[in-house]
Amino acid sequence: MKKIINEPSNVVDEMLDGFVYANGDRVKRIEDTTVIAQKDIQLNKVALVSGGGSGHEPAHAGFVGQGMLQAAVSGEVFTSPTPDQVFEGIKAADAGAGVFLIIKNYTGDVMNFDMAKELAEAEGINVDYVIVDDDIAVEDSTHTAGKRGVAGTVFVHKILGAAADRGYSLHDLKQLADRLVLNVKSVGVAMTAATVPEVGKPGFTLADDEMEYGVGIHSEPGYKRTAIKSAEEIAAELTAQLKKAFDFQTGQEYALLINGLGATPLMEQYILANDVNKQLSNEAIAIPYKKVGNWMTSLDMNGVSLTMLKLEDDWVELLNHPVSVTDW
Amino acid sequence: MKKIINEPSNVVDEMLDGFVYANGDRVKRIEDTTVIAQKDIQLNKVALVSGGGSGHEPAHAGFVGQGMLQAAVSGEVFTSPTPDQVFEGIKAADAGAGVFLIIKNYTGDVMNFDMAKELAEAEGINVDYVIVDDDIAVEDSTHTAGKRGVAGTVFVHKILGAAADRGYSLHDLKQLADRLVLNVKSVGVAMTAATVPEVGKPGFTLADDEMEYGVGIHSEPGYKRTAIKSAEEIAAELTAQLKKAFDFQTGQEYALLINGLGATPLMEQYILANDVNKQLSNEAIAIPYKKVGNWMTSLDMNGVSLTMLKLEDDWVELLNHPVSVTDW
Repeated sequence: MKKIINEPSNVVDEMLDGFVYANGDRVKRIEDTTVIAQKDIQLNKVALVSGGGSGHEPAHAGFVGQGMLQAAVSGEVFTSPTPDQVFEGIKAADAGAGVFLIIKNYTGDVMNFDMAKELAEAEGINVDYVIVDDDIAVEDSTHTAGKRGVAGTVFVHKILGAAADRGYSLHDLKQLADRLVLNVKSVGVAMTAATVPEVGKPGFTLADDEMEYGVGIHSEPGYKRTAIKSAEEIAAELTAQLKKAFDFQTGQEYALLINGLGATPLMEQYILANDVNKQLSNEAIAIPYKKVGNWMTSLDMNGVSLTMLKLEDDWVELLNHPVSVTDW
Repeated sequence: MKKIINEPSNVVDEMLDGFVYANGDRVKRIEDTTVIAQKDIQLNKVALVSGGGSGHEPAHAGFVGQGMLQAAVSGEVFTSPTPDQVFEGIKAADAGAGVFLIIKNYTGDVMNFDMAKELAEAEGINVDYVIVDDDIAVEDSTHTAGKRGVAGTVFVHKILGAAADRGYSLHDLKQLADRLVLNVKSVGVAMTAATVPEVGKPGFTLADDEMEYGVGIHSEPGYKRTAIKSAEEIAAELTAQLKKAFDFQTGQEYALLINGLGATPLMEQYILANDVNKQLSNEAIAIPYKKVGNWMTSLDMNGVSLTMLKLEDDWVELLNHPVSVTDW
């Protein structure tokens, strides 16, 4: 296993300390927890809290800062954080106007964030939440009832973060969030599986000439294993899946996120972006917002995902709202 | 070869088109060239131009924008851009106050950027330059006389970019640049070699249990091949090399860059950051500026490098000067 680590059981703790060492001007770690919280949280704005298993960096700690998340809670690698940790995150983030939770749709995350919500409400903190289930690849997967939450979550962070920064109430954020999750869809492809440090070998095996469409960010099964395709063919397949799921209509506007899964060079992500452009330029839709890079990774997985968000109202403006976070 | 590409001979052209597709609000591609230039360049400020072989993304196009580079010129993968391409970059960037070139120390780059400088001067554009040679691992390497230019170049971009944005003259930029390159040093480690698309196999071979210290960003030889070490041991070795090269003195201040080489997850980079902190906290020096991420990669190489810059004057302020680029 070629990883730059020490004890495999200690990777999350050391990573969080390293993250705060590097970004201590903006964030702090709440002592004896896995919570990374924004320093100098502005009072009387709704605070956003997200998180989940580790191994998806820069998600979620890289998005902590003004205009996006006020706290991120990390579980062990590919493992939901416990309710008490999420509760610590809620307490650290709360600035008097309530806390909004952004949860990726995995059974453990949904259960544990919900329990944390109850703990917080018992202490008088107003809490609401949204569950992101943007992965159109498969229904019901290894850790999930329904669809999985993947890179589309990043758009949800960004837009809700901007709205909260503009002073939206908890009620208004909930309404916006419900519309966002209906409008965001993702699908990916993996060339290799991720290797969890404590396991020491890849989560599944793909032959040297194989890849798999629709793999999840914890190496959950996809929908089609095939010989390695060109960037052009991959773009055609992924955009066709999104086109079918959205049912593209003339005049619609979308935001596009191309997301590297951890070990895929930016060069390849931009080559894919070029082919996605060729595919989408055949459609009568517009793409006024695009973003390419590593946002929701899966450790050392080689692969990419495509996310599209059907735009409504002022969402482009919210996507362009300034943020002060480590990774945007 | 598991790469998301089309024709291996066409990767640079398609990547540049994909880059402009994604970031067209900020940059443009100069037609029939490999130049990515800032849109809306401010008049009467010295323009910064850098570049080199492709395969180091986000360097250099990801640093194009106000406050950093006004143009980036791409060669083929791991191959210097030709003088005429660099000349096109200079012309695209010039805003009436001259152009400053930032060149990584490789024989081809130095020769071709120098020829481009002469072409530009013949057309009446004032040009000056600096050569960055920050890699302390080895003297004289595969493509280099003297030391190689690696991730320290990113600090040079950032600080000179801020100074140019503040109105420094060509003469003042040259003086600042000469001090910067004397004060910046880097050293890295590779777990795997990079695979150039047109070659189709890694530039060298490391066994499953091997790594190599001091490998260059084009898979040039390092200084020591060894069994895989822990993050703690790697941090100790790399910081010891830097300590020796700088001869740390009480009260000195440094900026620190931890740079992923392309396929190394952020989790591992932050774990290493934590161990680097432990090593450096034993020294009587301060680190008021730190940055972790993929800045100067080597395609799909798995590895990291450490850069330190001994700080003078207002350099931290220049590091923190706002920029509008894709990757910072």
